Amino acid sequence: MAYLNDHYLKLKSGYLFPEIARRVKIFCEQNPQAAKRLIRCGIGDVTEPLPAAVIAALHKAVDEMSHRETFRGYGPEQGYEFLRRAIAQNDYRDRGLDIDDDEIFVSDGSKCDCGNILDILGPQNKIGLMDPVYPVYVDTNVMAGHTGLPDESGAYEGLVYLACTPANGFVPEIPKEKLDVVYLCYPNNPTGGVATREQLTGWIHYASENRAILLYDAAYEAYISDLGIPRTIYEIPDARQCAIEFRSFSKNGGFTGLRCAFTVVPKTLKAATRDGKLTSLHPLWLRRSTTKFNGVSYIVQRAAEALYTTDGKAQVRQLIEHYMGNAQVLREGARAAGLEVFGGVNAPYLWARAPKGVPSWQAFDRILNEANVVITPGSGFGKNGEGFFRISAFNSRANAEEVARRLQALKW
Amino acid sequence: MAYLNDHYLKLKSGYLFPEIARRVKIFCEQNPQAAKRLIRCGIGDVTEPLPAAVIAALHKAVDEMSHRETFRGYGPEQGYEFLRRAIAQNDYRDRGLDIDDDEIFVSDGSKCDCGNILDILGPQNKIGLMDPVYPVYVDTNVMAGHTGLPDESGAYEGLVYLACTPANGFVPEIPKEKLDVVYLCYPNNPTGGVATREQLTGWIHYASENRAILLYDAAYEAYISDLGIPRTIYEIPDARQCAIEFRSFSKNGGFTGLRCAFTVVPKTLKAATRDGKLTSLHPLWLRRSTTKFNGVSYIVQRAAEALYTTDGKAQVRQLIEHYMGNAQVLREGARAAGLEVFGGVNAPYLWARAPKGVPSWQAFDRILNEANVVITPGSGFGKNGEGFFRISAFNSRANAEEVARRLQALKW
Repeated sequence: MAYLNDHYLKLKSGYLFPEIARRVKIFCEQNPQAAKRLIRCGIGDVTEPLPAAVIAALHKAVDEMSHRETFRGYGPEQGYEFLRRAIAQNDYRDRGLDIDDDEIFVSDGSKCDCGNILDILGPQNKIGLMDPVYPVYVDTNVMAGHTGLPDESGAYEGLVYLACTPANGFVPEIPKEKLDVVYLCYPNNPTGGVATREQLTGWIHYASENRAILLYDAAYEAYISDLGIPRTIYEIPDARQCAIEFRSFSKNGGFTGLRCAFTVVPKTLKAATRDGKLTSLHPLWLRRSTTKFNGVSYIVQRAAEALYTTDGKAQVRQLIEHYMGNAQVLREGARAAGLEVFGGVNAPYLWARAPKGVPSWQAFDRILNEANVVITPGSGFGKNGEGFFRISAFNSRANAEEVARRLQALKW
Repeated sequence: MAYLNDHYLKLKSGYLFPEIARRVKIFCEQNPQAAKRLIRCGIGDVTEPLPAAVIAALHKAVDEMSHRETFRGYGPEQGYEFLRRAIAQNDYRDRGLDIDDDEIFVSDGSKCDCGNILDILGPQNKIGLMDPVYPVYVDTNVMAGHTGLPDESGAYEGLVYLACTPANGFVPEIPKEKLDVVYLCYPNNPTGGVATREQLTGWIHYASENRAILLYDAAYEAYISDLGIPRTIYEIPDARQCAIEFRSFSKNGGFTGLRCAFTVVPKTLKAATRDGKLTSLHPLWLRRSTTKFNGVSYIVQRAAEALYTTDGKAQVRQLIEHYMGNAQVLREGARAAGLEVFGGVNAPYLWARAPKGVPSWQAFDRILNEANVVITPGSGFGKNGEGFFRISAFNSRANAEEVARRLQALKW
């Protein structure tokens, strides 16, 4: 008799975004007129077309695939050398950071990598994550059997939730207890918070002392405007010994529909075998990549490479400026509406407190019904998200301005 | 202290194809003249350019991505409806087989899916696989902790190897013991064998009686020329209750560098919870897909859709005819060289017995050194592959003809 993985049955019924989609669908069916003026600031999906440099690179690569002489079949699973070099050079070595080409693993998404990384880690690790939290970190640990059941707030037994609140600037305090693996995400999804050099240094010290591993999700790195904020965890000394970094082309190059990301696994990063022998994780991740993955589409890797050209860089900057211009409009609108609002300065997300202690899903329903705007309820990200909601700045400028107006018209 | 997944350390040092690449590299460095005439019939990678219909669809989709109005961001993780429908309609419903659109899960590769499917299955399953075997089935089970250590032949404790030999036509006998999950691959990689309707019916009966699940890898389905051979496991009654099918666009449309495949998980397929309650696997795979995957690139899904147009189908047929023409040339050449050879009729692989009991790797080295042809040593696929080698028909016609000549010139 074939058995299934029982851990899946511990998962709560709806991943956050499907539940939002369900409510929006019902609303639109019941309110066809209002549906026409609906503006989506929920899911963090880009809205602007791909940069011209990317489009040109895609057409060129497609043409290569149409001739026998330049056709490409299977590529290296871990990514083509041309892209790994472009990444390591531009994102790290040009900043004085020592990252080798073969420490870059090109993938089809940071979401995938954040989940798949658990494959090479042991089941005995004590795992810490931020609350509010990107749900994928939690759910993939549930699937892997690292947790018990969830409590009423949705928090799973066996995971350690590190509170991120306005009081700590959405950067958790260094824990007293010993954790083995800690997820950190900066610029943060959903709060829009960033961690200072001092705060990240504190975490690297903690990890070094405890031989812990930091899983550092920097998918929104491109949105950092404050020059003092680290762009990568490897700006912090000793991070090569204790941190894996996840990066993505989704939100800088607008690749959410094209699919390309990368993960940095330094060769100096070690974890312990069951009997305590420290062993490099790099060969394990390489083995996983070559065995369970077939590499990213050649044409998409050429597209990602184009982001590192002079034109590509300028076009990415324009995209970022566009979305961050939206964020400013939304911030000002939300403040004018009397909302307490965080983020939106070094990240494309605003994190607003619902007035009068209104719970998140209730705020979601009101904003949907009365302003015809879709936001993301903060409680969907964890207990400490209750009472907040996330506004995404991924939109047209006109829509951002309209949302800013509607927020001000909303009576709580 | 962070712990790694110890099961990875049980893996033998080299995945088959990296080891081949290593030996070829050394050979080429030491024999720069011979390297110039090297012909690769090792890895099963397509050599011909993408079909014209695919190229046109790619350019069109790239153009869509360059305009705000037609730009696509995140798509449904399980695949766009347009592609799921094209697949379900053309590959199943047009053949009278009852497969719903939402039973199709579009992915970036069958290799990935064959590995990832273990995520939703329990650790207590007794797993059977064919020997010789596609190494990914074995290695992903090792990584998941379903095995002990390998013996001298490379067979892992805890897996049940089902012998595939010339005597049984490379279709294993129905086992006496109860297995919970069985991998079957037809047309077979590496032997090129196919299973008859009667043989597959026997396996479906076995699975039904034992409530086992068949993981049916049909990546080479397009190469079946014999009209009596089932093209999909769902041609066999009751397969919807016990089989998952893996299919790919890699070898029909030449998508090895583009990356698109699909997996069929019927909603009627069930597995047991730990306490023996039968539960549908479809929601678990959907949950895995939406949580740990972000979908295939939009432009690549449009490319796959183009394979189902009238032009696309005709162009795929031409590609298949080209490769199967090579297979025939190679078969005749190998036979004229006095080799005992199997496969190559309903599959792009030939499975040849090395003369005089020469072991596989020794045959590999001789064919590399003396004929300057790269093949795949059969022992890399398991104990029952020892003494055989695989010749891939993915090549130009001129190369296939040259390899046929060189095989005949080879003195054993």
